Amino acid sequence: MSVEKTNQVSAELTHPLIKWRRELHQIAEIGWCEYQTTYYLYEQLKDTSFKLYTGEDVVAKEARMGLPKQEVDDLYLNRAKKAGVPEAFLTKLKGGFTGMVAELDTKREGPHFAFRFDIDALPIKEEKGKEHKPASEGFVSKHGEAMHACGHDGHAAIGLGLAHFLDEYKDHLNGRYTIIFQPAEEGSRGAKAVVEKGWLDDVDIFLSGHIGIHDLSVGTVAATTTDILATTKMDVTFDGVSSHAGLKPHEGKNALLAAAACTLELNGITRHGEGATRINVGKIVAGAGRNIVGDHAFMEMETRGSTTEINRYMVKEAIRKIEATALSYDVKQTTDIVGEGISAHSDQEWIEVVKQVSQGSRFVNKVLDEATIGASEDVAYMIERVQQKGGSASFFLYGTPLANGHHHKAFDFDEGVLPAAVNLLMNIIVEKGC
Amino acid sequence: MSVEKTNQVSAELTHPLIKWRRELHQIAEIGWCEYQTTYYLYEQLKDTSFKLYTGEDVVAKEARMGLPKQEVDDLYLNRAKKAGVPEAFLTKLKGGFTGMVAELDTKREGPHFAFRFDIDALPIKEEKGKEHKPASEGFVSKHGEAMHACGHDGHAAIGLGLAHFLDEYKDHLNGRYTIIFQPAEEGSRGAKAVVEKGWLDDVDIFLSGHIGIHDLSVGTVAATTTDILATTKMDVTFDGVSSHAGLKPHEGKNALLAAAACTLELNGITRHGEGATRINVGKIVAGAGRNIVGDHAFMEMETRGSTTEINRYMVKEAIRKIEATALSYDVKQTTDIVGEGISAHSDQEWIEVVKQVSQGSRFVNKVLDEATIGASEDVAYMIERVQQKGGSASFFLYGTPLANGHHHKAFDFDEGVLPAAVNLLMNIIVEKGC
Amino acid sequence: MSVEKTNQVSAELTHPLIKWRRELHQIAEIGWCEYQTTYYLYEQLKDTSFKLYTGEDVVAKEARMGLPKQEVDDLYLNRAKKAGVPEAFLTKLKGGFTGMVAELDTKREGPHFAFRFDIDALPIKEEKGKEHKPASEGFVSKHGEAMHACGHDGHAAIGLGLAHFLDEYKDHLNGRYTIIFQPAEEGSRGAKAVVEKGWLDDVDIFLSGHIGIHDLSVGTVAATTTDILATTKMDVTFDGVSSHAGLKPHEGKNALLAAAACTLELNGITRHGEGATRINVGKIVAGAGRNIVGDHAFMEMETRGSTTEINRYMVKEAIRKIEATALSYDVKQTTDIVGEGISAHSDQEWIEVVKQVSQGSRFVNKVLDEATIGASEDVAYMIERVQQKGGSASFFLYGTPLANGHHHKAFDFDEGVLPAAVNLLMNIIVEKGC
Amino acid sequence: MSVEKTNQVSAELTHPLIKWRRELHQIAEIGWCEYQTTYYLYEQLKDTSFKLYTGEDVVAKEARMGLPKQEVDDLYLNRAKKAGVPEAFLTKLKGGFTGMVAELDTKREGPHFAFRFDIDALPIKEEKGKEHKPASEGFVSKHGEAMHACGHDGHAAIGLGLAHFLDEYKDHLNGRYTIIFQPAEEGSRGAKAVVEKGWLDDVDIFLSGHIGIHDLSVGTVAATTTDILATTKMDVTFDGVSSHAGLKPHEGKNALLAAAACTLELNGITRHGEGATRINVGKIVAGAGRNIVGDHAFMEMETRGSTTEINRYMVKEAIRKIEATALSYDVKQTTDIVGEGISAHSDQEWIEVVKQVSQGSRFVNKVLDEATIGASEDVAYMIERVQQKGGSASFFLYGTPLANGHHHKAFDFDEGVLPAAVNLLMNIIVEKGC
Repeated sequence: MSVEKTNQVSAELTHPLIKWRRELHQIAEIGWCEYQTTYYLYEQLKDTSFKLYTGEDVVAKEARMGLPKQEVDDLYLNRAKKAGVPEAFLTKLKGGFTGMVAELDTKREGPHFAFRFDIDALPIKEEKGKEHKPASEGFVSKHGEAMHACGHDGHAAIGLGLAHFLDEYKDHLNGRYTIIFQPAEEGSRGAKAVVEKGWLDDVDIFLSGHIGIHDLSVGTVAATTTDILATTKMDVTFDGVSSHAGLKPHEGKNALLAAAACTLELNGITRHGEGATRINVGKIVAGAGRNIVGDHAFMEMETRGSTTEINRYMVKEAIRKIEATALSYDVKQTTDIVGEGISAHSDQEWIEVVKQVSQGSRFVNKVLDEATIGASEDVAYMIERVQQKGGSASFFLYGTPLANGHHHKAFDFDEGVLPAAVNLLMNIIVEKGC
Repeated sequence: MSVEKTNQVSAELTHPLIKWRRELHQIAEIGWCEYQTTYYLYEQLKDTSFKLYTGEDVVAKEARMGLPKQEVDDLYLNRAKKAGVPEAFLTKLKGGFTGMVAELDTKREGPHFAFRFDIDALPIKEEKGKEHKPASEGFVSKHGEAMHACGHDGHAAIGLGLAHFLDEYKDHLNGRYTIIFQPAEEGSRGAKAVVEKGWLDDVDIFLSGHIGIHDLSVGTVAATTTDILATTKMDVTFDGVSSHAGLKPHEGKNALLAAAACTLELNGITRHGEGATRINVGKIVAGAGRNIVGDHAFMEMETRGSTTEINRYMVKEAIRKIEATALSYDVKQTTDIVGEGISAHSDQEWIEVVKQVSQGSRFVNKVLDEATIGASEDVAYMIERVQQKGGSASFFLYGTPLANGHHHKAFDFDEGVLPAAVNLLMNIIVEKGC
Repeated sequence: MSVEKTNQVSAELTHPLIKWRRELHQIAEIGWCEYQTTYYLYEQLKDTSFKLYTGEDVVAKEARMGLPKQEVDDLYLNRAKKAGVPEAFLTKLKGGFTGMVAELDTKREGPHFAFRFDIDALPIKEEKGKEHKPASEGFVSKHGEAMHACGHDGHAAIGLGLAHFLDEYKDHLNGRYTIIFQPAEEGSRGAKAVVEKGWLDDVDIFLSGHIGIHDLSVGTVAATTTDILATTKMDVTFDGVSSHAGLKPHEGKNALLAAAACTLELNGITRHGEGATRINVGKIVAGAGRNIVGDHAFMEMETRGSTTEINRYMVKEAIRKIEATALSYDVKQTTDIVGEGISAHSDQEWIEVVKQVSQGSRFVNKVLDEATIGASEDVAYMIERVQQKGGSASFFLYGTPLANGHHHKAFDFDEGVLPAAVNLLMNIIVEKGC
Repeated sequence: MSVEKTNQVSAELTHPLIKWRRELHQIAEIGWCEYQTTYYLYEQLKDTSFKLYTGEDVVAKEARMGLPKQEVDDLYLNRAKKAGVPEAFLTKLKGGFTGMVAELDTKREGPHFAFRFDIDALPIKEEKGKEHKPASEGFVSKHGEAMHACGHDGHAAIGLGLAHFLDEYKDHLNGRYTIIFQPAEEGSRGAKAVVEKGWLDDVDIFLSGHIGIHDLSVGTVAATTTDILATTKMDVTFDGVSSHAGLKPHEGKNALLAAAACTLELNGITRHGEGATRINVGKIVAGAGRNIVGDHAFMEMETRGSTTEINRYMVKEAIRKIEATALSYDVKQTTDIVGEGISAHSDQEWIEVVKQVSQGSRFVNKVLDEATIGASEDVAYMIERVQQKGGSASFFLYGTPLANGHHHKAFDFDEGVLPAAVNLLMNIIVEKGC
């Protein structure tokens, strides 16, 4: 297939890609709760030649990390029912078995490709002001407490676009194609469970990517990425004793103060001289009322490091500081690890491949050898598994200007990135799988 | 009426007092949301000769402080509807016009007595374990998030007992009797609104009191109390900018960190050399998720001081520290005063009165001249108003052992205190109003 | 002796009292280093009929608390030598055996009086500006690092004035008179060692007092005082590991950060609902240089409580927080108790005595029944011992306006308080010992 | 000159290099106080054909940053006098004009080489235990409060070795040779003042280097280095109001608490997503005594960033936090910038040069293309100036195992690095200057 042809297909896909992205944006669901999202993806692909896997076929049950509380799961499940997702479909998914794998086998000799697109949203209330395009153009999230503020709506749309291309041109292709719509990437919770299910075990070529991250133009892509940060996600609780804050403050054991002090102590963990570190306490809920010494506090936190070892340093420091705060405030603590991610590296060969296949593309006009991520991505588990088994992998960056940074309540991107991403993947497939 | 008679009446009231207290305990409602509670009190007194006032007759609308959020008000209002409180009754109360005043005029010359009983509960989840008597004896709070952990269920029951005595023996009494069932004492939010409505303006004798506080035996009462702490209740918010905690932590403006730091700064306000101070941040809700720099934080806090001036010192320090934290974390802050209480002093004459009228009582067998409160009580506004208008006032302490301190989730008291309190009030009425 | 006579003697003593005070002010020396001060007192009394005790006769060696470092002791000792204090005199005192006891026995039947005057200064650099009277009138401290900022120069002068009166009028008096010039009151370090030496064991009447504290006029005295705070003085060290702050910050164990965090943790110890508490970290020396992770930190701190039990609460909280900080920063800590003080109460009989003996005084024209101290005073050990042995004791307050509060670098008082204090003591002696 | 010859010369220099290093180690002096050190260097070179510059000839007076306090300067100056440094020599240097430049002009056509060796020590008390080689072999620092804990004694010795080589073989060489013995590298205070004096303005080849940093073997060198961190050094003071910590704590304005809080706030400055940052408060001196609210605090601190821009972010955050802390504690602050360093990059050509000239060397047996520094080095100012003027520059790393990390009190290195470093510089000179 010629580059003129892939240019043409990419152009034709532009409108559907934007439609898919916007419809997905409106049904934003947080990790392990992507019930409507999974059904939406299923509906788009059910009439293709892909074989679709959902529920326990997608993830290894015990390897899932950071499942939501029952009440949150119920909220999303009920919402999906009300939105018309069939009971039979939900029965397979309920309890956090979201995500989908789509498989296409040409039955012809050729490489086994796998592609991964993450599909979950974030617990952020989306901006409603008119400067925010999803608001002004009417595709803002319907679920007040969840928002696609990291571009996974775009990722999922790219996955749909790629699937439609593969379906349409399957007779011109060789090898096998596995498209993974992964749940619960935020918090590094989902990829490991997909890996443990075995989906990456016999893959020859594994490709994934992210839109945005750096402030690049649409049409620019990075062929490899570095600095995926290793990470550990933890939930921390402090439990003390309540008392009347005026009458007997000294009889209380103040879990709220412990959480505040712990947050600052964690934030002050010494930087590491040999690489990047991150620490974030992203949520605190503590205490019952203003005149009561708070007897309970809950914190969501995470550490990161530029290597798995540096992240381990952060975790060790964090745990000691949590224990010390509990001692200082004479309260009890629990620390649960609810997510974990490792570091990973793209294979260098993709620099040449991407440059070569993009020649003549109207969608990809500039290729950077590499770009840094500087964040965590549980795709690292997939890359590691593919490489361990002898396959080759890369994680691309698809350039797009951003209205606001990732995880901002007015995050948005230029939808021109969607056909550009599909175009790159198509051209690689044409090169390697024809 | 003889002391033998009041002893007998008190004994007869013991069973109803316990029944009222336990039924009130089960329908615990937080301040300005006492819809079921007010209806319960109304039901107990509607067939007496008391004239009952509810809704806007009880409180001055604008003087109410610290009203709950709409959604909380809705929750309690709907719950009251479901529990069978008539719509017509609720119509008068809705929007936080809870509480009731019961008035009895003998039309005979005599003093105007006023009594105040506070009726609100706290936002505490009650202990369910079997060592907690309300749990083991089946009268634990039905509303998971509210609990009578300060004894106001007992106070309201005492008020009902007193009312029934007055109703039954009204022909033997002189003067006027006003019983105030005050909403929203917790947080020092309700008394001022009752005062502003004028209920205390022509009162000759004002009596109120609290059960517990100190570890005294049932039968011991303190005739006067000191050290009611002046207090200010504040809601604080911090607003910053969210960002991806791994990718662009430096682009965030971290409101969650500001709240944690502010809490510790507030807690560290220097003690005052001339009297007691208190500071409590009793609630923090901050941030959205672990990998997002938190852009919003909410705190409920309070200051106290043994004099109004010392409390003013605390407020001044607190506000400066809130502003400084906002500067440090480059976030915006708002500080709203949602409750305020002053200091007040019992009139000394009550020491002799209480001692004298308790002679021969089987219920009050030990009278302390005074006891310290060491907490805030918005009854101080009522005492101040009565004294300003030339009346005399005291705030009693009714002894009872406590299973756990006030505001503890397993707070409980010896119900023997209920007839003791009613007995004291009866004996004073017999002395002064016969 | 008539009140006219004591008025006259007091007037005559005014000039010498001011002279003594100013000369003592100039040679301010910190606790256990009062070498010049002791010699100065000795010189003033050596030609009287008092028997003078110095060195190990004054204090029980092992009961002395909080001795200074060798180098500080050397500094003051050498300075005393240079200032002309004879070697023979210093030989008895060196190693921190400062202070003096002056004893006068009339050999006539009568009560055994003991009076205590504290003589030490504080490690404060005195204000040099012209608004500060000691500076403008030329009697500012010669020792840059020590200053009489608590009025002990005045106390010692009052003691000298009293001694001169007793010496001159001894033939008119009965009983025995012991005047204790106590070292090291600041930090509650010296009184216990005097008590342990036995000086208070057979005392009938013990009187001491303090100038200032409250903003009272000269001529006003409080006959009894309350609220002497129990206290514990501690030295804390943290020891970690230094490292290059740019290159290997993560290899350091940061003792400086531990000290900073510990200071805030200590400052935030929850207030006690039943009485006053205090906490102060008054000195921190930590770290070596800006680009080195600090491996050592030293802190001087103290706790106080309105009762010995409440102070014990503070000490317990403090020690747990020090241990927790060491855990948090992975450093070692040591905590040494270097001073301790208890609570004490004046005997009530002194209210009447002071009122009575002050009638007709030109120097004491207003007597308050009581005043609060709100600080610590190791005189409490002396009061306790005297009372235990059957004697009677009071601690007076001598009114004087203050230019600035106690321990301020521009602290100063109205010297009119000096003859007023001597006058009161004289009149009591005349009443009880004639 | 052949590599055999430079091998031989290097071997002959080994003993003198060790002797120089150990003698310099014993007279460790902190920045701008290197009086004995400068004289020592002068003595070693005064009989060579180098022209020696000292005093104001070396540094631009106003460009010197972070001069020590007068009393510290006096201490080192007097010590130098007592150690026998001639008055005439010291007269030129006093007031912080330390360091020396040695110049040799062959008068033959050829490049102008400049070499820089830093000569200052750190304010660290050296380890005295027998595991510390300088202690066990008797060359521990004589000045208790200063120590060569960063290897500048080795640097200066290498400079002397290089100078002796140049002097001996000057007839075989072409061009000009400037050897800069730079004062006050620690704290990034000295290099800029040398640059401002013009010493780097017409240099063709500029070479400097550091021993240690990474754990490399003797004989390994890195031909270029990256990641010299930009840095800003600041002194911060807080001034409040003292008061009696028991009596009137609320009247104090606590500068000591401000310093503690500020230290933690600074330590918690959010990490930057785009590069390395560092923050260190390395010294705190605050307060006067335990029972006094501290009215003064002094802090030495520094920020660093992997780029000048990232360091600027740290400085901006730091200054805002210092101001906010002053507001929070109601105290005054001053912030003085006392040192500053920029980033710089080695020229890439040196990778090939070093590899080539080291062939056949018995001292340099492994060449790394590059190594990271990860710390600040004010040599960056020199590199920048040379490159701006068209010259070429590199900063080498000379491998040596370290007993303990840089700035540790038991820092030590393998002296085998000394002839290796001289050997490399010799071979480059032979290559470029023959």
